[in-house]
Amino acid sequence: MSDKGYVLKEADLHPLAIGAALLGTGGGGNPHVGMLRARELIRKGAEIRVLPLDAVPDDAWVAEVGGIGAPVVGVEKIEEGGECYRAMRAVEEAAGVKMFATISAEIGGSNALEPVIAAAYAGLPVIDGDGMGRAFPEVQMTTFFIYGAKPAPAAIADEKGNVVVFKEVNDMFWLETFARGVAVNMGAAAGLATAPMSGAFVRRTAIPGTVTQALSIGHTVLEARQKRQNVVERVVDATGGKLFFTGKVNDVRRELVGGFARGHAYLTGVGDWEGHEARIAIQNENLVLWVDEVPVLMVPDLIVNLELDTGEPITTEVLRYGQRIAVLGLPAHDLLKTPEAMKIVGPQAFGYPELTFNPLQPQPIVA
Amino acid sequence: MSDKGYVLKEADLHPLAIGAALLGTGGGGNPHVGMLRARELIRKGAEIRVLPLDAVPDDAWVAEVGGIGAPVVGVEKIEEGGECYRAMRAVEEAAGVKMFATISAEIGGSNALEPVIAAAYAGLPVIDGDGMGRAFPEVQMTTFFIYGAKPAPAAIADEKGNVVVFKEVNDMFWLETFARGVAVNMGAAAGLATAPMSGAFVRRTAIPGTVTQALSIGHTVLEARQKRQNVVERVVDATGGKLFFTGKVNDVRRELVGGFARGHAYLTGVGDWEGHEARIAIQNENLVLWVDEVPVLMVPDLIVNLELDTGEPITTEVLRYGQRIAVLGLPAHDLLKTPEAMKIVGPQAFGYPELTFNPLQPQPIVA
Repeated sequence: MSDKGYVLKEADLHPLAIGAALLGTGGGGNPHVGMLRARELIRKGAEIRVLPLDAVPDDAWVAEVGGIGAPVVGVEKIEEGGECYRAMRAVEEAAGVKMFATISAEIGGSNALEPVIAAAYAGLPVIDGDGMGRAFPEVQMTTFFIYGAKPAPAAIADEKGNVVVFKEVNDMFWLETFARGVAVNMGAAAGLATAPMSGAFVRRTAIPGTVTQALSIGHTVLEARQKRQNVVERVVDATGGKLFFTGKVNDVRRELVGGFARGHAYLTGVGDWEGHEARIAIQNENLVLWVDEVPVLMVPDLIVNLELDTGEPITTEVLRYGQRIAVLGLPAHDLLKTPEAMKIVGPQAFGYPELTFNPLQPQPIVA
Repeated sequence: MSDKGYVLKEADLHPLAIGAALLGTGGGGNPHVGMLRARELIRKGAEIRVLPLDAVPDDAWVAEVGGIGAPVVGVEKIEEGGECYRAMRAVEEAAGVKMFATISAEIGGSNALEPVIAAAYAGLPVIDGDGMGRAFPEVQMTTFFIYGAKPAPAAIADEKGNVVVFKEVNDMFWLETFARGVAVNMGAAAGLATAPMSGAFVRRTAIPGTVTQALSIGHTVLEARQKRQNVVERVVDATGGKLFFTGKVNDVRRELVGGFARGHAYLTGVGDWEGHEARIAIQNENLVLWVDEVPVLMVPDLIVNLELDTGEPITTEVLRYGQRIAVLGLPAHDLLKTPEAMKIVGPQAFGYPELTFNPLQPQPIVA
């Protein structure tokens, strides 16, 4: 990788999608459709460069883009493809700037691909980094907003040609409220672009290298499968994560509330966890893991469900009775663990005042 | 009245508010707060000219503005005052035009005053006309939209400084959906400005003279009260309307659904209607009047409830058990009775497929 990064090849898209799904911690939407769409664009000649954070000039403008809606809807209602691009163009016009690059709001799930697709449409590079290092359910839950990104002008676009601009918005919570409401009216799936961020700001606040990290996780999974290794073990070793539970899903309760899929999954232990029970709280993403009713892992750390045998990431919308899963913990990036960040993405922000965040310590990475 | 219209005096505001409330056909929100705000602006030196439709140049740009939300909320949550003005400025910026004048989306209720206030803020005249000649519950139910006004760019603003621009919207129904959703998130009361309309278009599609009509109705009511005449009779005589029922409210059922107040009022006849029953369907405004379960009056004709003794217009949000009311019918303007218009504001559009619109014939006006 040179200073100018690297160009995404068609063969990178599958591992990127796998890594993104894993970093989605159960949410973020399935990246499969976005992967197919990015492949189509690459086949048509789009050159999508992944640019290191260091290569972004101070005074360049960066567009944070991503899909917004409930992932359970994304399965049924497929985006047209240009949603994030059109939202970005509307932001450019409202702000009177030209974008230099796109960046992912969240590397976890389908939003790993959205800025890649918007970049391909616009002929711009995509930055190697994102605003979450994972997935979170609300638009203000990014390091960009936590560290002071402006809430406006932002814009949202749907597949039907509707474009709504949030021209003046008091704060990021109002943006989330308005954008979520419009997204629900758009059919619960739309593309959102937030206000232009300067290169200097993005270099200071983005979680670095996460496109490359997702690619690398995907390669690990594919290689382990090819070599018939234990995929779960290989992922744990390669990510500095830790295995917290293996079990069988015995119940999933979820409902769609105000554009979010909320609920709980209940697991009965197998293997080393035979005789134990676990419970996972979900709001699009996995929020808290309890083992025998003791909270052992929680936001902002990553709670990842992999199918026990194949290592396939299990998103919350396809979680169902009878699945055998491994529950991994991955440590969140330090930018998500500051006092400012904990107010937005800590357990309290998700409605768990009784929980105290005990950060997962990074484990040694085994190559 | 010269070709250039007339300047609204402080003494005009009370009759204007009374006439507007009456033309609100039970909805449109209470114009009282808007009246106080307009008075404040006039006292501070604002000159608000009411301009006849004929005086609007072909190529001038006209801003249609109005409050959006559920009237029952407007009673509790008072607007700050600049909402419509800020929405109008956002539309100007999005469209790259300068407005020549404001016009009311609906003369009925609080939206008679909103364009007056926006005009005062902007130093522009307000046009003597509107898009309904009454009040209707949804933003697309104007003669402007019925006859082809563009749905975008439109904008909505709240009292907290939030401004949302509907930059590209497929049609007027999408505008209603998005604007209503954002208005609900803004606290169910906000100012909406729709896309710039040319003077030529407005002269062809606006219902003419309705500011002056509201003023005139208000003067009739005030004069009748002063002379201790029967206010209801005077209003019937002066408007070319017809008395359809007098009765006592024995039940009001209503609920707030998706930003609308919906329900029914039930009346027991008094006076000439002793022994008869009536029912009025409400969606913010009065939609249909049944006497002894026979539909006798319906949208787009105006169904007006006046307090029997004082002639005070009764809006649906203050309708309550025990009130004695007179139910008047006023004929809708011909622009609301074309086949195109009936699709949008006829009984079918409000969910009454079984009703056939039988237009109320204008009665002789008694001066």
